[in-house]
Amino acid sequence: MPEKIGDVGEFGLIRRIKDLLAREGVKSERVSLGIGDDTASFLPRPGYELLVTCDSMVEDRHYLSRYITPFDLGRRAMTSNISDIGAMGGKPLYALISLGLKAEMLVGDVEEMYRGFLAELNPFGASIIGGNLTGSGNGMFIDVTLIGEVREGRGVRRSGAREGDAILVTGYPGQAAAGLQLLLHSPEDAALLHHPLVKIYNTPSHRAQLGEAIARTGYATAMIDTSDGFLGDLGHICEESGVGAEILDEKIPVSKSTREAALLLGRDPHAFFLGESDDYELVITCRPEHVGSLRSVGAECCGALLTEVGRITAPGLGIALVLPNGEIRPVKPLSWDHFGST
Amino acid sequence: MPEKIGDVGEFGLIRRIKDLLAREGVKSERVSLGIGDDTASFLPRPGYELLVTCDSMVEDRHYLSRYITPFDLGRRAMTSNISDIGAMGGKPLYALISLGLKAEMLVGDVEEMYRGFLAELNPFGASIIGGNLTGSGNGMFIDVTLIGEVREGRGVRRSGAREGDAILVTGYPGQAAAGLQLLLHSPEDAALLHHPLVKIYNTPSHRAQLGEAIARTGYATAMIDTSDGFLGDLGHICEESGVGAEILDEKIPVSKSTREAALLLGRDPHAFFLGESDDYELVITCRPEHVGSLRSVGAECCGALLTEVGRITAPGLGIALVLPNGEIRPVKPLSWDHFGST
Repeated sequence: MPEKIGDVGEFGLIRRIKDLLAREGVKSERVSLGIGDDTASFLPRPGYELLVTCDSMVEDRHYLSRYITPFDLGRRAMTSNISDIGAMGGKPLYALISLGLKAEMLVGDVEEMYRGFLAELNPFGASIIGGNLTGSGNGMFIDVTLIGEVREGRGVRRSGAREGDAILVTGYPGQAAAGLQLLLHSPEDAALLHHPLVKIYNTPSHRAQLGEAIARTGYATAMIDTSDGFLGDLGHICEESGVGAEILDEKIPVSKSTREAALLLGRDPHAFFLGESDDYELVITCRPEHVGSLRSVGAECCGALLTEVGRITAPGLGIALVLPNGEIRPVKPLSWDHFGST
Repeated sequence: MPEKIGDVGEFGLIRRIKDLLAREGVKSERVSLGIGDDTASFLPRPGYELLVTCDSMVEDRHYLSRYITPFDLGRRAMTSNISDIGAMGGKPLYALISLGLKAEMLVGDVEEMYRGFLAELNPFGASIIGGNLTGSGNGMFIDVTLIGEVREGRGVRRSGAREGDAILVTGYPGQAAAGLQLLLHSPEDAALLHHPLVKIYNTPSHRAQLGEAIARTGYATAMIDTSDGFLGDLGHICEESGVGAEILDEKIPVSKSTREAALLLGRDPHAFFLGESDDYELVITCRPEHVGSLRSVGAECCGALLTEVGRITAPGLGIALVLPNGEIRPVKPLSWDHFGST
C-alpha cells in the first residue's frame, strides 16, 4: 500500500521533506537557519536589494490534477515565481512553500512535487528554506514565496516606459492558452499530454536568466512577465508608466503549432497571443536605438527570439491594435480575473 | 446591496487594498517597491540577519467564520506569524498576504481583514508589501509570509537548550484551548463570544516585544512560541537540542478562568496547558542563574509573568511530568497534527 499523508502525520511529512531537501537540494552558504525552527534566517548580500514575490495555485482552478503529474505541478508553481523575480532582473535565492494538502494524498506524490520545485531552483543555486503544511478539506493549494536579489538600483520596474519606446516580447506568448484549449476541446484524449502546446501549458519555462541579462544592460525602461496574457501585462506597464501603446497586428509572433491548433479549434491565433495565457515570457520596453542590443542579448543568453511588436504612445491613448489595412482598433486588456465568471 | 468581490474583480480588489494600505498602513523607508509590480523590493539593514516565516489559516479548520469577525481573523493570522519572528528574538518588518477567496465574499469584509493585519503590524512600523489574490472554490485560506530582522548572530534558536537549564514559560498557555472547548461545548451560545477565554482563542496576543527583549539579554539558550501547545513545543526544543525535560506538575500556571472553564467542562486544567493550544506564549530555557534576570525583563517589558516550570535533563530521558507525590510520569508531546483524525 503506498503511504498516505494521514499515515505519517504532519511532523512525519516534514521530516521526509527535510531529508529530501538535504539529499537533493542545494545548500546556500548565506542561510544561517533552514527548516526546523520558528523562522528561517539568512544574511543578505551587501549592495543588493531583496525581491519578494508570492503566487499560489489552487486545484481545479489553476490546474487539473488528472492532467498534470506532481513533479510538473511543482515545476510549474515554482516557475511562475521565478519568472516574477526574473522580470525584475533579479536572481532567485530562497523559497518558502506553503501547502494545503488532503490527508488521503500520497507521501510519494508530495515528494515528487518537491523534486519539481528543486528542478527549477537548483540551476540557480537557490534553496527551500521554510514553509508551512496544513490540511485542506477541499482541494489542494500551493503557495510559493520566493525571495531574490538584484544589484541595488538595477531592478527593472513596470513604471519606466516612455512615449516612443519600442515594445519587445520574447518567444510566443499564447502557446499555453492554445495548449489549454486543446485539452478542454478533447479532455479524454490522453495522447494530447505529449502535444508540444499542452507541454508548454503544463510545464512552462521562465525567462529569468534572460531577464537578469537584460537588466544588466541598463537598456530596459520597463519589464514584466506575461502571466496575465500579453495585453493584460502590457496594460499593467501602461497603467504603472502612465502611457498608451500601439501594437502592430502583423508583427505578432505566432508559432507553427499555435497556428495549427488555432485552425483545428476554429480560433484566431492572434487572440491566443493577446488574451489570457500562462506563458511566462517577457514584455520589455526600451528606446528604439537599443532594440538591436537587446535582441543580441536574447540570442546570446539563451537563443531567445525578441520580436518588436509596437510602440509606447502618449498618455491617455490606451492600447490600440493597428491592422494590416491601417485600421486602428482600441483593445482592452482582457486579463485573467480570478473572481470572474470563467 | 453590499459590494461583493465578484462585482469589483481581482484588479478592482487589488486597487481597493492598495488604497486602504496607503491610508491606514505604515510606510517603511527601506521599501524600494511595494504592491503593484512583479515583486516587492527592499534594502536590508547592514549588520542584521533576515528572518522569514509563513503560516496559513484554512476556513473550517483553523477558524469557524461564524465565530470570528474578519477584523479579528486578520489579527489572528498576523499574530501567529509575528509570534514566530518574536520567538527568534526578531522584529517584524514586511508581510506578504496570499488569499484564496470566494467570489461571493464582501469587499468590506476583505478590507476589514486587512485592517486586522494592520492592527498587528502598525505598532512595529511594519508594512504589507505584496501578496497574491486568487479564487478558492471551497473555503477561504489566508497565507501570511512575514519577514523580520534580528541583529546578526543574536537570533535565539530551538537548538541551544543544555542539561540543567531552567524552563520558563510566559503567561498561561492553555487558555486558547479552554476557549475553543467552551465554544464547541455550547456552539449556540452567542454570549460566549465575550468570554475572556473565547476572546483569547479568537484574538490571541503574541509576545514578540518580550522575545526581542529576551534575545537582547543573551541569556536565553533556546526559545519557541507555543503554537503547537506547551508539550508539543517543548518537544521541538528537546528534539532540536538533543535533550530531555522534566516538568513539575505543581508549577504549571493555570489562570482563574481556565480553572473555572475546566470545572464546567469536566476537564483537567493541566491538560489544557500541556495539550494543543494556540496561545502564542513563549517557552524559554536559560541557565538557572539567569532566571531572575529574565523574569525582571518580563515584568519590565510588558508586565509578563514568567513561570519556571521545570528543568532540561540529559539526552534520551524524554519529557517527564513530576507529580506532587513524587511520581514521575513520562509524557509524549501530543501536538496538533493537521492530517490527524481531529
